[in-house]
Amino acid sequence: MHSIKELQAILAQAVKNQQYPAKPAELYEPISYLMDLGGKRMRPVLLLMSCELFDGDIQKALDPAMAIEVFHNFTLMHDDIMDKAPLRRGNPTVHEKWNANTAILSGDVMLVEGYKLLGNLEPELLKPVFKVFNDTAVGVCEGQQFDMNFESLAEVSIDEYLEMIRLKTAVLLGGALKIGALIAGAGDREADLIYSFGENLGIAFQLQDDLLDVYGDPDKFGKQVGGDILSNKKTYLLIKAIELAKGAHAEELNFWLSKTHFEPADKVKAVTRIYNELNIRELAIETMHAFAAKAIDQLNAIPVPEERKKALKEFGEQLLIRES
Amino acid sequence: MHSIKELQAILAQAVKNQQYPAKPAELYEPISYLMDLGGKRMRPVLLLMSCELFDGDIQKALDPAMAIEVFHNFTLMHDDIMDKAPLRRGNPTVHEKWNANTAILSGDVMLVEGYKLLGNLEPELLKPVFKVFNDTAVGVCEGQQFDMNFESLAEVSIDEYLEMIRLKTAVLLGGALKIGALIAGAGDREADLIYSFGENLGIAFQLQDDLLDVYGDPDKFGKQVGGDILSNKKTYLLIKAIELAKGAHAEELNFWLSKTHFEPADKVKAVTRIYNELNIRELAIETMHAFAAKAIDQLNAIPVPEERKKALKEFGEQLLIRES
Repeated sequence: MHSIKELQAILAQAVKNQQYPAKPAELYEPISYLMDLGGKRMRPVLLLMSCELFDGDIQKALDPAMAIEVFHNFTLMHDDIMDKAPLRRGNPTVHEKWNANTAILSGDVMLVEGYKLLGNLEPELLKPVFKVFNDTAVGVCEGQQFDMNFESLAEVSIDEYLEMIRLKTAVLLGGALKIGALIAGAGDREADLIYSFGENLGIAFQLQDDLLDVYGDPDKFGKQVGGDILSNKKTYLLIKAIELAKGAHAEELNFWLSKTHFEPADKVKAVTRIYNELNIRELAIETMHAFAAKAIDQLNAIPVPEERKKALKEFGEQLLIRES
Repeated sequence: MHSIKELQAILAQAVKNQQYPAKPAELYEPISYLMDLGGKRMRPVLLLMSCELFDGDIQKALDPAMAIEVFHNFTLMHDDIMDKAPLRRGNPTVHEKWNANTAILSGDVMLVEGYKLLGNLEPELLKPVFKVFNDTAVGVCEGQQFDMNFESLAEVSIDEYLEMIRLKTAVLLGGALKIGALIAGAGDREADLIYSFGENLGIAFQLQDDLLDVYGDPDKFGKQVGGDILSNKKTYLLIKAIELAKGAHAEELNFWLSKTHFEPADKVKAVTRIYNELNIRELAIETMHAFAAKAIDQLNAIPVPEERKKALKEFGEQLLIRES
């Protein structure tokens, strides 16, 4: 079995080895550009770890792991257009560095390149892996659409929010893990358990993201703390605060949500204080822990020797105690 | 064997039967909207015809035929954003009726839905069909990128133009036919011959498109005759005219290409006259016939009874003598 660091090194090399045609440059350069910006490679690492959990050969899983990473980066390229994001991992987004048309078309071919990386699987394996990949891809698109819809909705419930982040973030973690399991030859029940582990871990991961945006250490977070507050983003924290705020709290929260001119620091401070007074942080941590516990339950239920689960447990813990 | 009309009716029913989830509506309604706008269903018809050419069962080919049609419509949805096109088949384009973000994301999920339609193929068939589908999809994206690049290039050669339309238009016809052949159990050589038939037919088809835009009957063409001339679109006709024009012709052509204010009818008339005086129409027809002849050669080389080729020959002829 490999350590997380070793798997990341293997994947870094695989990204380096990826070769795209030289022409048309506008189509392929943005793919290499975005892939080379790095990131934790969390999803392909999970795929390889799941393969090893079930005693599979990660060489067989390397292309499908890259398929998941290329797919994930495709979603970033298109999401960044839709969100009008100027920066991705501290660098100009593709639609900023090139233009929106390039980001659309390069993203399209990137999705196809992701599929192509499944093409070397043996026929009997390609079919079920292809199904998981398709279902995952549809889920991620649905999640992004719900997320965009939430921006203009007056009211979003916690359940709707959790379903959105399940689709947008968690199914891809689950899908990656399930593909790794299938390649290792795991049975249906095991594959479903590791999928469910990933899905629950993914929801916990996103809740941690929401928390970090408000309570992260500014020196370690890497992004502006309070960004979600400034943009009225409907995170778990805001939705819960709207749900719980009464009287003066409700008035003050509405005041800040509807105010269009303000000192950023004032709004972040005021809304954070409301969160604190309503115990939103504790509630979010509690919910996060509940999903993390569900994830661990699924992992525990998988009938493989305990020592083979260590790496995945460690990885899960790292994701939930991270500071950026 | 089925007639073209019968195949179109079967496909119309298949389009009608397609069901997408109700939510999120912004994601799935544009897919149904665009698919329901109709069109000749040329690509899936070709796929089914190829299947019957090789004595296959079209029931087995129906989902893959729909995959090709969904894929084709996905490219239209995204191309229309990039081209800022207001209308598609006489109706508002998806980015006009909804917005660009919806057209991006709905298109993305549409591409995945196309792939999903391959998912019921038996494993041994899925693998080669998946490869053809991927290669085709990459080709179409490359063709669209070259087409966009041509807009800002001072010079495009006839060879570069033919390569662009091969990628943008012809490989999808070839790919559809090859998939139909594979599903019918054709051998590699037969599958390659029918692919080549489609590729050559596709190039001839696009040249006919270029011709119709200038020489089509305004009452039958369905679009504004001369649209390509008005937008300085680098078609076979314009590229050939730039290549051949000398002296006064070259001067006059450059005059109209660089003029920014003009009466549309004046420009169409003047450029058409230059084309006529340089025999561009005849040259384009000659080139179109050369590709059509190459297509027929490939079809003739396929070792199946002549009567089974009749429908494809007829369809090819229809494409090249059409008026819209």
